[in-house]
Amino acid sequence: MSLKLYFAPGACSFVPHSMLELSGAPFEPASVKLHKGEQRSAEYLALNPRGQVPVLVDDGEVVTQIVSILLHLDAKFPQAGILPASGLARTRALSTLAWMNNTVHPTFTHVFMPQKFTEDEGAQKVIRAFAANSYRGLLGEIEVLAAQASPWLTGEKPGALDAYALTLLRWGGYAGIDPTTFPSTWALAQRFAALPAVARAVEREKLQLNVYQPAMAA
Amino acid sequence: MSLKLYFAPGACSFVPHSMLELSGAPFEPASVKLHKGEQRSAEYLALNPRGQVPVLVDDGEVVTQIVSILLHLDAKFPQAGILPASGLARTRALSTLAWMNNTVHPTFTHVFMPQKFTEDEGAQKVIRAFAANSYRGLLGEIEVLAAQASPWLTGEKPGALDAYALTLLRWGGYAGIDPTTFPSTWALAQRFAALPAVARAVEREKLQLNVYQPAMAA
Ligand SMILES: N[C@@H](CCC(=O)N[C@@H](CS)C(=O)NCC(=O)O)C(=O)O
Ligand SMILES: N[C@@H](CCC(=O)N[C@@H](CS)C(=O)NCC(=O)O)C(=O)O
Repeated sequence: MSLKLYFAPGACSFVPHSMLELSGAPFEPASVKLHKGEQRSAEYLALNPRGQVPVLVDDGEVVTQIVSILLHLDAKFPQAGILPASGLARTRALSTLAWMNNTVHPTFTHVFMPQKFTEDEGAQKVIRAFAANSYRGLLGEIEVLAAQASPWLTGEKPGALDAYALTLLRWGGYAGIDPTTFPSTWALAQRFAALPAVARAVEREKLQLNVYQPAMAA
Repeated sequence: MSLKLYFAPGACSFVPHSMLELSGAPFEPASVKLHKGEQRSAEYLALNPRGQVPVLVDDGEVVTQIVSILLHLDAKFPQAGILPASGLARTRALSTLAWMNNTVHPTFTHVFMPQKFTEDEGAQKVIRAFAANSYRGLLGEIEVLAAQASPWLTGEKPGALDAYALTLLRWGGYAGIDPTTFPSTWALAQRFAALPAVARAVEREKLQLNVYQPAMAA
């Protein structure tokens, strides 16, 4: 069995990255530098023609998409607690995971890469401002969930939702949002990052949890 | 056991709607008229504060998000063939499902509801035009998958990916894209719609597969 994860420091790939560390399984981490455009190299596009991280390679089989990678790892390492095992708890967790992935994450993409939605620079500006505002509201929805965490978003075990919440809150800093204004999510993110297994992923990505700079605020 | 599905004719809720019909399980279909704004009524928002379809209510438990609803139904009705049962086939199907849901579907939202991304009407126009063009490319990716279908996107059994492909191709008509220009997906959609179980969902939603009007073309 061989597992290789292509990730980019600070990107959404932190979600499967931290889950692999939590699983305890040996894996080869392969860093892709997005700011250098490595995701658009011929070699990387041969792996993932969509030019994105994360990519998991499991015994030569290429798996893309966070949701699919997580479900693949969850099936492989059921003890890791990536998602609740079954029943309504699992369905609810998958609902939140899907929403983070199809709504919160893409809203941040509008802030970070508005050029993905129009070539018009004026329109890019208004898209970014509108999305930053929507994003704040979405982090507010996560804050409600985090306030109910006991102690993790899916219960007794840290899992994929905690990793995604950390990532999304962290990205807020780049959208001019102070993470400490969401105290429950902020506490959850710090608690999660401090777990010894997760700390290895944080260290490998050289993640700083709070990237907010007041001068960036709208 | 009671199952109730809130759906809107022509919307993404067709995916779980057709899967429920395929499963053969009895369920109560509840139509939500989006053009009348019924998704924003106090009653509906009490059910789903995000004001969207689909919503599945399973014995009083509310389940939102297509991906989560499908996985919930798949766990409940493993014989229905909603997704491949296990292994790499399942992982691959989940990857395509996640991509349809987090990339193709939201790209169409930019065409159909650009006001969700900016209040500026000029910017809405450029967002819509850019997204319609991206959408054509994404339907091209689905066409490659449809060309390899044998006979369905996940193999011998019709499933969730076929339903999503039909929906996304159909929406293309509203983006000025002639569905017949993607012949494999067009054939797949027609074949899928003609299945007796699926035909019941098509009939209930009064779906017309080809809504393209040449005058709408860019
Ligand atoms: N739908 C994909 C999204 C992946 C994604 O957004 N990846 C970003 C990093 S967070 C990326 O690779 N961006 C590089 C680029 O677009 O050039 C998933 O769920 O895995
Ligand atoms: N992320 C949701 C998206 C659901 C969605 O986009 N629903 C649309 C119809 S296709 C809707 O209800 N739109 C009504 C509105 O936004 O007012 C899911 O995957 O279930």
